[in-house]
Amino acid sequence: MDIATVNTLPYEEFVDTFGNVVERCPLIAAAVWPRRPFQDFIVLEEAIGDFIDSLPDAGQEGLLRCLPDLAGRELQNGTLSRESHEEQSAAGIDALNSADAARMARLNEEYKQRFEFPFVICARMNDKASIFNRLSERCRNERAAERARAINEVKKICHLRIQHLMHTK
Amino acid sequence: MDIATVNTLPYEEFVDTFGNVVERCPLIAAAVWPRRPFQDFIVLEEAIGDFIDSLPDAGQEGLLRCLPDLAGRELQNGTLSRESHEEQSAAGIDALNSADAARMARLNEEYKQRFEFPFVICARMNDKASIFNRLSERCRNERAAERARAINEVKKICHLRIQHLMHTK
Repeated sequence: MDIATVNTLPYEEFVDTFGNVVERCPLIAAAVWPRRPFQDFIVLEEAIGDFIDSLPDAGQEGLLRCLPDLAGRELQNGTLSRESHEEQSAAGIDALNSADAARMARLNEEYKQRFEFPFVICARMNDKASIFNRLSERCRNERAAERARAINEVKKICHLRIQHLMHTK
Repeated sequence: MDIATVNTLPYEEFVDTFGNVVERCPLIAAAVWPRRPFQDFIVLEEAIGDFIDSLPDAGQEGLLRCLPDLAGRELQNGTLSRESHEEQSAAGIDALNSADAARMARLNEEYKQRFEFPFVICARMNDKASIFNRLSERCRNERAAERARAINEVKKICHLRIQHLMHTK
């Protein structure tokens, strides 16, 4: 798909295509659609980033709560989105041994108790070891700093999802 | 379900339950979850309304673009959410004769050309005749006024969806 094609899409088709570049938040693609024509995919990505930044703090935290835990209930019961499933698989998070699975569950709970949103990391830019390291470290952040960090990870995930759509659609 | 039960839900279950009270926008339920305990369902509804009001204009329009057309492609291809399908059925919009269907399609297009978001109305508080009347009238509004009007209809739909969950879950 090229950007010229994207720029011709009515909003329904635009949201069908880009509605999950931010997990479970088609509102975000729908919000940036009027900013077309986009010069290229980077400009589209920046429009999405700017929109996320324009959300109130409660909205940014709401966005984060739409993402699944790593190796969490959605992976276990098969309800992950296709994109999330591929990302968790790429980092080896879908095949943890029982000790790692228990450790991940414990750290996820600790993180959520502290921040009231799930731990978010761009799994495709990490592996199992670095994910455990970042999760342990970030549990010690302050809430505002950690919200900003998590939103930055959402933007990395969004970047890779757009790149994938660009090359496959 | 009573409000005391709602107030005990972790965010995952809260979003499972209330994630579609605003169509395809789980971010919104997820954003208001930290405001628990809610005194009653009206307070929950007000928290959702306040959050919607706090969104930038682009976000409010993005929200509107997550709603389906009345008698549109989602009804035809069977991809409406359960809630939307029940609402369109209740107003008789799922069984238009061919003349009404053509008129609805034409008016929906005219509306979307003008406003760049779909015509939204609380179908359960209307019937076929009043929906056609409001659609014809509202096509003549200014964009900002019409956005506010449409958001107000979203809040009415949200109210009835919460009432329904309260009585059935």
